[in-house]
Amino acid sequence: MGKKLTKRSEDYSKWYNELVIKADLAENSGVRGMMVIKPYGYAIWEKMQAELDRMFKETGHENAYFPLLIPKSYFSKEASHVDGFAKECAVVTHYRLKTSEDGKEVVVDENAKLEEELIIRPTSETIIWDSYRKWIQSYRDLPLLINQWANVVRWEMRTRLFLRTAEFLWQEGHTAHETKNEAIEEAIKMQGVYADFAENFMAMPVIKGTKSDSERFAGALETYTIEALMQDKKALQAGTSHFLGQNFAKAFDVKFATKEGKQEYVWATSWGVSTRLMGALVMTHSDDNGLVLPPKLAPIQVVIVPIYRSEEQLDAISAKAEEMMKEMRQRGISVKYDKRTTHKPGWKFAEYELKGVPLRIAIGPRDLENGTVELARRDNLTKEIVNQENISETLISLLNEIQENLYKKAFDFREGLITEVNDFEEFKEVLNTKGGFISAHWDGTEETEEIIKNKTKATIRCIPLDAKLEDGACVLTGNRSIRRVLFAKAY
Amino acid sequence: MGKKLTKRSEDYSKWYNELVIKADLAENSGVRGMMVIKPYGYAIWEKMQAELDRMFKETGHENAYFPLLIPKSYFSKEASHVDGFAKECAVVTHYRLKTSEDGKEVVVDENAKLEEELIIRPTSETIIWDSYRKWIQSYRDLPLLINQWANVVRWEMRTRLFLRTAEFLWQEGHTAHETKNEAIEEAIKMQGVYADFAENFMAMPVIKGTKSDSERFAGALETYTIEALMQDKKALQAGTSHFLGQNFAKAFDVKFATKEGKQEYVWATSWGVSTRLMGALVMTHSDDNGLVLPPKLAPIQVVIVPIYRSEEQLDAISAKAEEMMKEMRQRGISVKYDKRTTHKPGWKFAEYELKGVPLRIAIGPRDLENGTVELARRDNLTKEIVNQENISETLISLLNEIQENLYKKAFDFREGLITEVNDFEEFKEVLNTKGGFISAHWDGTEETEEIIKNKTKATIRCIPLDAKLEDGACVLTGNRSIRRVLFAKAY
Repeated sequence: MGKKLTKRSEDYSKWYNELVIKADLAENSGVRGMMVIKPYGYAIWEKMQAELDRMFKETGHENAYFPLLIPKSYFSKEASHVDGFAKECAVVTHYRLKTSEDGKEVVVDENAKLEEELIIRPTSETIIWDSYRKWIQSYRDLPLLINQWANVVRWEMRTRLFLRTAEFLWQEGHTAHETKNEAIEEAIKMQGVYADFAENFMAMPVIKGTKSDSERFAGALETYTIEALMQDKKALQAGTSHFLGQNFAKAFDVKFATKEGKQEYVWATSWGVSTRLMGALVMTHSDDNGLVLPPKLAPIQVVIVPIYRSEEQLDAISAKAEEMMKEMRQRGISVKYDKRTTHKPGWKFAEYELKGVPLRIAIGPRDLENGTVELARRDNLTKEIVNQENISETLISLLNEIQENLYKKAFDFREGLITEVNDFEEFKEVLNTKGGFISAHWDGTEETEEIIKNKTKATIRCIPLDAKLEDGACVLTGNRSIRRVLFAKAY
Repeated sequence: MGKKLTKRSEDYSKWYNELVIKADLAENSGVRGMMVIKPYGYAIWEKMQAELDRMFKETGHENAYFPLLIPKSYFSKEASHVDGFAKECAVVTHYRLKTSEDGKEVVVDENAKLEEELIIRPTSETIIWDSYRKWIQSYRDLPLLINQWANVVRWEMRTRLFLRTAEFLWQEGHTAHETKNEAIEEAIKMQGVYADFAENFMAMPVIKGTKSDSERFAGALETYTIEALMQDKKALQAGTSHFLGQNFAKAFDVKFATKEGKQEYVWATSWGVSTRLMGALVMTHSDDNGLVLPPKLAPIQVVIVPIYRSEEQLDAISAKAEEMMKEMRQRGISVKYDKRTTHKPGWKFAEYELKGVPLRIAIGPRDLENGTVELARRDNLTKEIVNQENISETLISLLNEIQENLYKKAFDFREGLITEVNDFEEFKEVLNTKGGFISAHWDGTEETEEIIKNKTKATIRCIPLDAKLEDGACVLTGNRSIRRVLFAKAY
């Protein structure tokens, strides 16, 4: 187990980095900025994937897979995409290695230079739309609702495990539609799916909104976002869904025959969430003792630890534990029994606290006599003695309670950190003392946004979908504004 | 639908290429040798993944994820690995693009050259063992049983959809053990898992064996393989599991403290199957009408097609179909109802035949009157009229029958194509007229293997695990041999 975690209050950033490593979620690799996702971290990601994948399929999407490498020229085809998109990409220039002349190492074979460089996908719009040209001929081929689970590479200079890595895992949805409205509806629908997933599975409240011009995805006409608030009062963009208009259809010449027989460009969306959600999950719920996982995403929901002195006692406890586990598994509870003799109960308690297992059961000889177990909750660290009878019922009800409790706690925290401000001094004051989201009027110009960003490091996180129309004066310029937007410092 | 498929008897290779494209499994992309896996193909791959993943987990393995890019120097560390392994790799040399001076395209930023080139993983032993050094300290950390689902790139010069592509999807298991025997047991166990999957899910009989020295994986001491036979009588290596000895542990300095406190190198295995299995699946069962899919891997197991003249008839049929589907889904049958009015029944029949849907139900007005449906089997193209009552039972029993029938048919085909030969003339004769596996004595030398390969294009597919020991004379040299091995022309 090693040294204790740094406290959140001491150094939140250090706490996060330590926790990700100590809880065996991920670690840095020998390749700059690229992480290894360890089995425990990957098990959480698999649960996320499974739920998201189910939600995508229930909304009519199918999975497919497109090439990892994209010809460089594809990037030049959609002008705003290439302009706005970060050009920090991994470039493949050669396709062969050879043994060096001294025979001691491998070197790049300079004779195997590609005619056109290939880029490791930073996102797949270009290569996918190059395929869609062949797939779409008529309105009968629409809508085309495709998702891809993939790895992507963006050569980030400053990286942090899960939050910003040079390679990350994600899903990217790419859809094509007959009409503008249908595409906009799709983009909004997927923002809704993301919000549903964040709130009901990650227990992480999010604000739905649209991005300002400067924060919009390169090539999009509108970016729909879900924004969450971390415990250090910084915002985190948790997922985005883009209405792409006809930009990619025009760039890749994807037309369809309408019912009336006319040729028209199709309308597009794209949407994605990534392993960044792992970072958001950690930062939303965890505490100074370690991870706190919402039961719906916890790889192990219940752990059973035997407390014993003799081998006979361990055998008796194990028999009872096996019996209980059988019932639990039938009820769909994911349970682990840790009867390792190499570690003491106290060590195991700390270990599962660090790993965020929602419920811990301890069984000792006296529990066997009394027909009880000791049940400890990870979320509020309380313990109680409960009956072995109907234990699965008790656990299921508690797991639901924990799931709800985590959401409520995060929701209350976030709600207390949305502050309406009306002048720029107050803006800076609130940002530096209280933090969180600042709800303020903005004159709608990129210049104002830029000045505020330079002066305060706060950016417009979103224009909330439910923002009410009200006359106001821009917090910086005093110019007219029709609704408040949300500012925050962000990840 | 377009033109009819080329017949297998005319040109098997052409038939395969056409079928993969017409059945919407995959297509070539704008990147040389890299394919796009289309939704229908990907749905089959997802079913394969789900079953394999379940089997891996049931045998104690966990998933993790390691970086896509590997520093070039890692490849030099395990000498036999780099020597033997194909050096046709994609090499990343730069990490940034920029807009060209004329502003019209993107070009590689020459200032952003990597100090050390990075290789897109062709397989991950090196980067994974670099991590294992940190993960393994003592016998308590062993066995380490990890699997990864990932994409890999090997710059193949001659590519074919699924069978040989520059990028492919696969899983790679990488395990570490205390003892040599335990590692060998693991490698054999995973060969068994692969054989189980091939036979019971893909309905594809396989022969388990070991590879000869020259066909062994670079860095392995023993390669366990499963070998299948395609309808054109060529063999296909469907999965391999490698006992790696201590080679990678030594190359990456991975030692553990034994129970006795000594420092020892760990023992390793690695094992993988890939999207190549998709090619094997297609070539094992499909026919001149299109795909034939085993029910356990078919994305759609049953399709219902309405036969109607009037809208009233369609409505009545649809009501009945919905009712039947509800029951089918409850019983776990994957069913689709195609009531598109844009296509005629005959077109739909051909379409689902092409797509290999195991069972097709047609319902017309007379069926409604009689309480019957017409049920067509894809595997043997027979039709019968069956009662609507207990239809789910009928379907489940037929799906099982089809699954078994496909296996049996492939098994009988394969069994008829293992020919024992005792001299080299017969060897060539059988190879060129009959084809399939040739069971022959071999003197165990690489030289002989090489000569046979050069003269006949046949290679040693495996030394069967169940090969009985018998004295014999090498089919080429007449030198002593103690058992027969299997030769074949192979994919």
